[in-house]
Amino acid sequence: MSKAFNEELAAIEAGAVAYLTAFSRVDVAAVLATYADDGVLMAPGMPAAVGKDELAVVYPNVFATVGFDMTYEIKEVVQISADWGFVRSATEGTETNKATGVVVPAAYQELFLLRKSAAGAWQIARYCTSKISPAG
Amino acid sequence: MSKAFNEELAAIEAGAVAYLTAFSRVDVAAVLATYADDGVLMAPGMPAAVGKDELAVVYPNVFATVGFDMTYEIKEVVQISADWGFVRSATEGTETNKATGVVVPAAYQELFLLRKSAAGAWQIARYCTSKISPAG
Repeated sequence: MSKAFNEELAAIEAGAVAYLTAFSRVDVAAVLATYADDGVLMAPGMPAAVGKDELAVVYPNVFATVGFDMTYEIKEVVQISADWGFVRSATEGTETNKATGVVVPAAYQELFLLRKSAAGAWQIARYCTSKISPAG
Repeated sequence: MSKAFNEELAAIEAGAVAYLTAFSRVDVAAVLATYADDGVLMAPGMPAAVGKDELAVVYPNVFATVGFDMTYEIKEVVQISADWGFVRSATEGTETNKATGVVVPAAYQELFLLRKSAAGAWQIARYCTSKISPAG
């Protein structure tokens, strides 16, 4: 077993929170900035988006289709090694179908796998979110 | 940046494949054996199941509700450190609503975060799966 790592917990959590808050603000540029260049999104209703080019297409489409009004709760923050960590969270609120205007309750859970860049930034390497609530 | 790790890639992949094949066999005991004691499942339609006691309740319920006939594809296997790694996969096939008998196409994607136990077994520490296909 390797030694325990914990000196970067606050920075790891901040990486996930930066994503969650940028998503809430519908700020595509800020969302993309939280990802590593090779970052992967695994989200409901679509195959994995791999790398910034694909992510830059996916997020505008998501935001054009659905409006989110969600709050997040951080469930755990774990540092795996000097430059890897993960964050588990849950989000709850409402989502609005932008085509119909229908608003429904929504709940998701998130697993962020983050990696520290050479420049010292904790970035999303892999991110999986699954929907707890039934499809709206 | 830490050194690259790759000596355990086959064992890491085998940990995820053990889960996927046990799931296909509807073998609850074998599914549970692929998890660490503190393992967490994040799956569509339910809040996170945390630890073996909760997992031991969730899987029989899932198998009682839905029949799966899926094939898997391993998308990537990455060793993070001496004792952490992850596997990303996708699964595709059909699922059967056991109450109605209705069979629908189904596709999911999976992110397995695995940890090597003191005994040397790669076990699922955190696992998130999201549904690509619309809810059936």
